[in-house]
Amino acid sequence: MKINSMKSASEVRTACRTGRWDGPTCGLAPGFVQANLAVFPKDWAYDFLLFAQRNPRPVPVLEVGETGDFLVKELAEDADIRTDLPKYIVWENGKPVCEVPDIVDFWREDLVWFLIGCSFSFEEELMNAGLPVRHIEEKVNVPMYRSSLICRGAGKIPDTPMVVSMRPYTPEDAERASEITGRMPSVHGAPVHKGSPDAIGIKDIQKPDFGDAVTVYPGEIPVFWACGVTPQSAVMEAKPPFMISHAPGHMFIGDKRNEEYRI
Amino acid sequence: MKINSMKSASEVRTACRTGRWDGPTCGLAPGFVQANLAVFPKDWAYDFLLFAQRNPRPVPVLEVGETGDFLVKELAEDADIRTDLPKYIVWENGKPVCEVPDIVDFWREDLVWFLIGCSFSFEEELMNAGLPVRHIEEKVNVPMYRSSLICRGAGKIPDTPMVVSMRPYTPEDAERASEITGRMPSVHGAPVHKGSPDAIGIKDIQKPDFGDAVTVYPGEIPVFWACGVTPQSAVMEAKPPFMISHAPGHMFIGDKRNEEYRI
Repeated sequence: MKINSMKSASEVRTACRTGRWDGPTCGLAPGFVQANLAVFPKDWAYDFLLFAQRNPRPVPVLEVGETGDFLVKELAEDADIRTDLPKYIVWENGKPVCEVPDIVDFWREDLVWFLIGCSFSFEEELMNAGLPVRHIEEKVNVPMYRSSLICRGAGKIPDTPMVVSMRPYTPEDAERASEITGRMPSVHGAPVHKGSPDAIGIKDIQKPDFGDAVTVYPGEIPVFWACGVTPQSAVMEAKPPFMISHAPGHMFIGDKRNEEYRI
Repeated sequence: MKINSMKSASEVRTACRTGRWDGPTCGLAPGFVQANLAVFPKDWAYDFLLFAQRNPRPVPVLEVGETGDFLVKELAEDADIRTDLPKYIVWENGKPVCEVPDIVDFWREDLVWFLIGCSFSFEEELMNAGLPVRHIEEKVNVPMYRSSLICRGAGKIPDTPMVVSMRPYTPEDAERASEITGRMPSVHGAPVHKGSPDAIGIKDIQKPDFGDAVTVYPGEIPVFWACGVTPQSAVMEAKPPFMISHAPGHMFIGDKRNEEYRI
């Protein structure tokens, strides 16, 4: 299957469902929203939903399933959360136990799925507006840092440092990037900080905690956005007995367009 | 106690807590955010939180307590949800069973409280911008209607018609009102509809389902906002065995200013 031949979200989902695609989703079905997946037993789902309510910037929930229901209703038509992503990870007690192409055999009546907005959506908007994204230019992962901003926990999920992603811009472009992403609150929204990394507890911008360092040119300032790694890191610390996520980069693709998440 | 002597939120809360105030909160502590209260046992709390996630316009949650915890953390300092509102209603199986000045004797370890944004906040912003609010001018309740817009249910809470409130404006003022309220998504946000009532299933603008009719002058169009009566109406239909709410008009007042809810 050629990546470039899959232009629509439903084509990608069908290819995943029928076993014809198990690769990353980056670059597939351009313009369609991509989302992180997290699946919890109901008891943990409550804590996760409340953690998201308290921390909408790092955890912008796009859709939540009914308990036990694996069909998507809002983000896509005819999508089955158990089969329509290319690759899943099953976790036990905070540790990955296997990587699987579908989760049909793992599904249970008490499971609840969450689809969570991701920065792919706003990066596309930035690039459409002529604002290049450095880590894409340099073909590496976005640099991410544990900041001193604290996310309030919920139930069994503890208070946790907000993980932030960084993209460097000139001060003028940083303003424009703020405006553009500020109009997309359901995919992380406006930056949480611009300028001095030290002000949010980041000691060395060239040593990210996750992802890769990128070049910051003279005259540029680092611009920080809330990052979806935050809930992963919070949940892993809480060690739920059982959960399922997408494999990194192997996301759910919905029928909605990124531009629909502009307010 | 003279109403006008209570200028701050914490004064009002103290007066409620010590039994010196049990009246409505309209006009008290101007500029401070007022919020609706809903308290559910944990099992229903999950459904309500998910209903809110699915319907943020009519159910803009401002803060949710930890299970069993009656202290407010974000909206106010030193506030006790059991005592700091002037009046509460206790409900059983969808029916009011008593009106009480505090809920200390009703508190249980499995209860979860929700504070929910209300239109007082955006009406104040409208008036500050020189846009009069008709029902306030006419000293009646805001007119509210069951619309044909459907809110997706969650768990035991069924799909339910969105209740909308209406304020008439000239087309130009309607645009300004949209902009102003659009910047306050956590207190209902932008209008859900402008113009023809029929388009959202409202047959007669002079016969609201709740509240009072107001004058619509020639040249004005009705402007409709999602209304906080929506979750009440949805929950009452679902008949939870036990819940607690504020008495109508007897709200929680937080330390945050309405203007802090502008994005």
